[in-house]
Amino acid sequence: MRGLFVTFEGIDRSGKTTQARLLAEVLGDEALGVREPGGTPAGEHVRDLLKDAAIPLGAEAEALLFAAARAELVAGVIRPALEEGRVVVSDRFLDSSLAYQGGARGLGVDEVERINRFATGGLVPDLTFLLEIDPAAAAERVGESDRFEDEGSSLQQAVLEAYERLVAADPGRWRRIDATRAPSEVHAQVMAAVDAARSGARA
Amino acid sequence: MRGLFVTFEGIDRSGKTTQARLLAEVLGDEALGVREPGGTPAGEHVRDLLKDAAIPLGAEAEALLFAAARAELVAGVIRPALEEGRVVVSDRFLDSSLAYQGGARGLGVDEVERINRFATGGLVPDLTFLLEIDPAAAAERVGESDRFEDEGSSLQQAVLEAYERLVAADPGRWRRIDATRAPSEVHAQVMAAVDAARSGARA
Repeated sequence: MRGLFVTFEGIDRSGKTTQARLLAEVLGDEALGVREPGGTPAGEHVRDLLKDAAIPLGAEAEALLFAAARAELVAGVIRPALEEGRVVVSDRFLDSSLAYQGGARGLGVDEVERINRFATGGLVPDLTFLLEIDPAAAAERVGESDRFEDEGSSLQQAVLEAYERLVAADPGRWRRIDATRAPSEVHAQVMAAVDAARSGARA
Repeated sequence: MRGLFVTFEGIDRSGKTTQARLLAEVLGDEALGVREPGGTPAGEHVRDLLKDAAIPLGAEAEALLFAAARAELVAGVIRPALEEGRVVVSDRFLDSSLAYQGGARGLGVDEVERINRFATGGLVPDLTFLLEIDPAAAAERVGESDRFEDEGSSLQQAVLEAYERLVAADPGRWRRIDATRAPSEVHAQVMAAVDAARSGARA
C-alpha cells in the first residue's frame, strides 16, 4: 500500500488525542484522522457499549468488541485511505488492545494479537508513537473519565509496562516520546519522525 | 461441572427456538433456557447491532461480535447454572458461528473456533441437536426475517453443509433430527436423547 499508517499509543491522558489531531491538521487533506474504537456505524455502536461503565463486561468480551470495531475500521476506512496514498493517523490501534487486554488484563499478548490479526487481516502501523508519562502525572491532567480511567493508576502502570515490552519486541516501528514536555515540543518530534518515514529514511 | 449443557442448531426456521422452549418448559425449574446472541446486558446490545440489517458489517466483525456476546453469556449465565447442576438449554451456540461465519462466510472453521475457545474458556455442549430441513422447505415457513434470512437459500444451503461437516467431525456430541416432522415428534426424540444423557447412558 502506498500510504503511511501512523498510530499514537500511551496511557490515558498522555496526550495522544491532542497529538493525533495536531498531526492530521498539519498534514491537511493528505491525512485522514481516525480514533478507536469507532469511526464506522458498527464501530460507534461498539464504542458506546465499551465506554458505558454501567454495563458489566468481562475482559474477553471487551477484547473481542475492540477487535470487532477495529475490523470494521480497517476494512471500511483505513485500508481504502492507504490505498489512495494518504497518511492515516489513528488515536490508538492494535497496540492498545495488546497493552490493555493482553498485558494489563492478563489475557495474554499472543492470544489478543492473534484475534486482532484475524480482525485486521494483518495490517500493522508503519510508525507508532508511545507518549510516555508517569501514571501519577497523567492522573493530574484534567479529562472525562470512563471504564478504564476509573480503574486508577495501578491499571495504568500495568499498561505502561506492557507498552514498554511491545516497544522492546519491535523497536523499528516505535518512537518513544517524553509526553511531559510541552505539546508543541512533542509535536515537533512527531513531525520529524513522520517526515523521515515519508522520505523513506527511517529515523 | 454437574449440570447438562444442551444446544439446538440448524438453519433458520428449522424449529430450533420452538424445540428449545419446549424442552426447557418440560424440564421446569431444573432447566435454564438461553438464546444467542443475547442474555446479558452487553449481549443484548450486541444482539441489536447484529440483527440490524441497516448497519453494514463485515464477516470478521460479525464473528467477533457473536463471540463477544457468547463470552458474556458463558461467564455470567451458563457456567453458573451448570455449576448449580442445572440443564442449560441454548437456542444456538458455538456451532452456529462455526457453520455461519466459519463455513458459509468462508472465514475458516479453525480460526472461528479458536476465537470462540478464547471467548468461552473452552466450554463445549454435552449434547447438540441438529434440526435438519431443506432450505427451500424452511423458507416456506413463516417468520420474521433479519440480516441472515434476507440472504436467502444459498447461504442456508452452505450453512447446512457446514453443519454436516461439524457432525461428521464430532459425532458423539450430535443428534440429527428430521425437522420436517411434527413438533411433537421432534420433541419426543429430543426428550429421549436428553433422558439418556442425564442417566449417563449416551444414546
